[in-house]
Amino acid sequence: MAGLGRAAVAAQRVLALSSGEQRNRALHAMAAALRAQQSRVLAANERDCIAATAVGLGKAALDRLRLDAARVEAMAGGVEAIAALPDPIGTVMAEWSRPNGLRIQRVRVPLGVIGIIYESRPNVTCDAGALCLKSANAAILRGGSESHHSSTAIHACLVEGLRAAGLPDACIQLVPTTDRAAVGLMLSGMADSIDVIVPRGGKSLIARVQQEARVPVIGHLEGICHVYVDASANLEMARSIVLNAKLRRTGICGAAETLLVDAAAARTHLAPLVRELLDAGCEVRGDAATRSVDTRVVPAIESDWSTEYLDAIISVRVVEGVDGAIEHIAHYGSDHTESIVADDAAAAERFLARVDSAIVLHNASTQFADGGEFGMGAEIGISTDRFHARGPVGVEQLTSYKYVVRGSGQVRP
Amino acid sequence: MAGLGRAAVAAQRVLALSSGEQRNRALHAMAAALRAQQSRVLAANERDCIAATAVGLGKAALDRLRLDAARVEAMAGGVEAIAALPDPIGTVMAEWSRPNGLRIQRVRVPLGVIGIIYESRPNVTCDAGALCLKSANAAILRGGSESHHSSTAIHACLVEGLRAAGLPDACIQLVPTTDRAAVGLMLSGMADSIDVIVPRGGKSLIARVQQEARVPVIGHLEGICHVYVDASANLEMARSIVLNAKLRRTGICGAAETLLVDAAAARTHLAPLVRELLDAGCEVRGDAATRSVDTRVVPAIESDWSTEYLDAIISVRVVEGVDGAIEHIAHYGSDHTESIVADDAAAAERFLARVDSAIVLHNASTQFADGGEFGMGAEIGISTDRFHARGPVGVEQLTSYKYVVRGSGQVRP
Repeated sequence: MAGLGRAAVAAQRVLALSSGEQRNRALHAMAAALRAQQSRVLAANERDCIAATAVGLGKAALDRLRLDAARVEAMAGGVEAIAALPDPIGTVMAEWSRPNGLRIQRVRVPLGVIGIIYESRPNVTCDAGALCLKSANAAILRGGSESHHSSTAIHACLVEGLRAAGLPDACIQLVPTTDRAAVGLMLSGMADSIDVIVPRGGKSLIARVQQEARVPVIGHLEGICHVYVDASANLEMARSIVLNAKLRRTGICGAAETLLVDAAAARTHLAPLVRELLDAGCEVRGDAATRSVDTRVVPAIESDWSTEYLDAIISVRVVEGVDGAIEHIAHYGSDHTESIVADDAAAAERFLARVDSAIVLHNASTQFADGGEFGMGAEIGISTDRFHARGPVGVEQLTSYKYVVRGSGQVRP
Repeated sequence: MAGLGRAAVAAQRVLALSSGEQRNRALHAMAAALRAQQSRVLAANERDCIAATAVGLGKAALDRLRLDAARVEAMAGGVEAIAALPDPIGTVMAEWSRPNGLRIQRVRVPLGVIGIIYESRPNVTCDAGALCLKSANAAILRGGSESHHSSTAIHACLVEGLRAAGLPDACIQLVPTTDRAAVGLMLSGMADSIDVIVPRGGKSLIARVQQEARVPVIGHLEGICHVYVDASANLEMARSIVLNAKLRRTGICGAAETLLVDAAAARTHLAPLVRELLDAGCEVRGDAATRSVDTRVVPAIESDWSTEYLDAIISVRVVEGVDGAIEHIAHYGSDHTESIVADDAAAAERFLARVDSAIVLHNASTQFADGGEFGMGAEIGISTDRFHARGPVGVEQLTSYKYVVRGSGQVRP
């Protein structure tokens, strides 16, 4: 691992001085290699899936693991989309002059070496590697053992791209999963070579990272996302947003887990919303008021309000207006993404100002919590931290800056 | 300490919804209180200075500890200058629309609760408290025991200001120095209530913070700052910059510690620069080439190149051109602040691009490494980290952001 760290630092020095054009050339060559090696990538993935099935990996995890031609093409397209983004490095973020004539620029620079620790999704190998390269950071990738063959095959395509552009292989390194001590070393033993850790995974990984990390972390806690339907909400809009927020894809962090309905709308909005969810195959766990509208609603217990189901299950509660919703979210939420459906502009603005989450929406689905949907290109995740990066983490969030000051002999009085 | 944490979190919720006008009212009242209570602050400081002298505190530390009327007035003026800064909170940092009609804003919000751990300078109590308040963060201040009476008297003025503006006392809390466990708790036992730690102190404090912290840190490592004099440098400009960078104030982190002289200028520039330093009372520790120009130069040993003297001592080395300087700085520097003196624009641009420090200057003194000199108002320090904040940490660097998204019923396809 120490060798990996040294190689990453050396490769990052090359990257820091590379042109955006050279890095884009590598990205395009990676996309081409992914397409050319599709059958090899799928064969490797098949090996992973067979092994995962044999050890009884759950359905959701198996779905995250499985690749098909469309998913490989999506990876290649994603890399091309990253190449198409503006080069963040060298951008002058701000520029001003001082009365003494000093000219000051704040210029974007890479973070350095980024360690990414992730679980079963093999596409993270590709997304994370490409995002780090675009932002001139070296990447040390440590994926889950269940996706080892897939990640190795994908990584080979990334290295092919690096070589085609004349960049060092060590710009993107994959840690062998056989190295059991690797995660611990990345978190605490490589502070000299790793500048930032990005964990992508479930609660146990996040807990371990928070406990052990001696380097900065861009954290991705769970998304306990809420939709609050105000009494002023247009019912048809509320219906469409609630169904989409919960059921479009249930396994993503921006999926809604709790529906809050204004007590003033309990008689008009609650029943139709709950019935639509039930009819669409969603399990509804409700408070007493919610249970009273449909016998299929099961009782919610206290822990439901802080559970990220990532499944076709939703908890539903009646609250006292927008302030009741704000209070519930402050108590149970994970500061990820929350939406208010309301025609009342004052209620909406109050919600947007007072809900302290990375993303707050008015009259839109929580499933928009995504770097691509925000127009930032691909993302490495959604940060629920307040430090450095919050919300979608794209190429700009993987950078630092420095101050460049030009003078003509100024000394400080 | 748990009580302090809870109080800070509650106070921060009030601050998050306060207006910039209200916070400025508190700042102006603080400045007024500092002026009105000047004699009380100075009497408290006198007690600290007597105690510090009795236990044999060093001259530099004693100088940092001592207040006089001018320094109290400077604190009050500093607080007013912070009040005069634009309110960072609620600022729309970026704004764009998506093809589906969603309107996205990135809006500045406070970081939350900031813990500041510092040593002997009592003015940090005032500066840090005021900066945190301006940026709507609650502050938990833990100063050194040697400045305890001074800090307590200053803190009383800050609380007077908070009360005058109707803000909770707990917006700025001072930890009693009698609580020996406080620093450990702030670093690792209060992750639920402290969002960021800012350490202000020497190497041992920084090392402890890096070892123990379980919350994000805005770090301030030492400033091993370099001035490189290129062969193309105007000698008069080089002389003026080198003397200022080293000797204007020797105890600040932006003071130069090493002078690098281009080998091509060893015959023209080296001797006059070294003699000027020696004549100004600066000890010069040099390599062989430097020793050859004046018998008063003492030999530099390996550790001199990585020593932050914070005193009238400078190490001097002859290097092979701008690339030699870049290499020396990469090896021995602390990524803080470096300056090149050169008339050759290409050499200057090469240095500015390739030296990976928080601040790089061309033809200007390293002593400009300061938030005030940058026009950012007061600073809480100079970050040598790459994460979150780099360089001077002013009110903007003490903020996070959130995304506010306004729609009209959009759902994700």
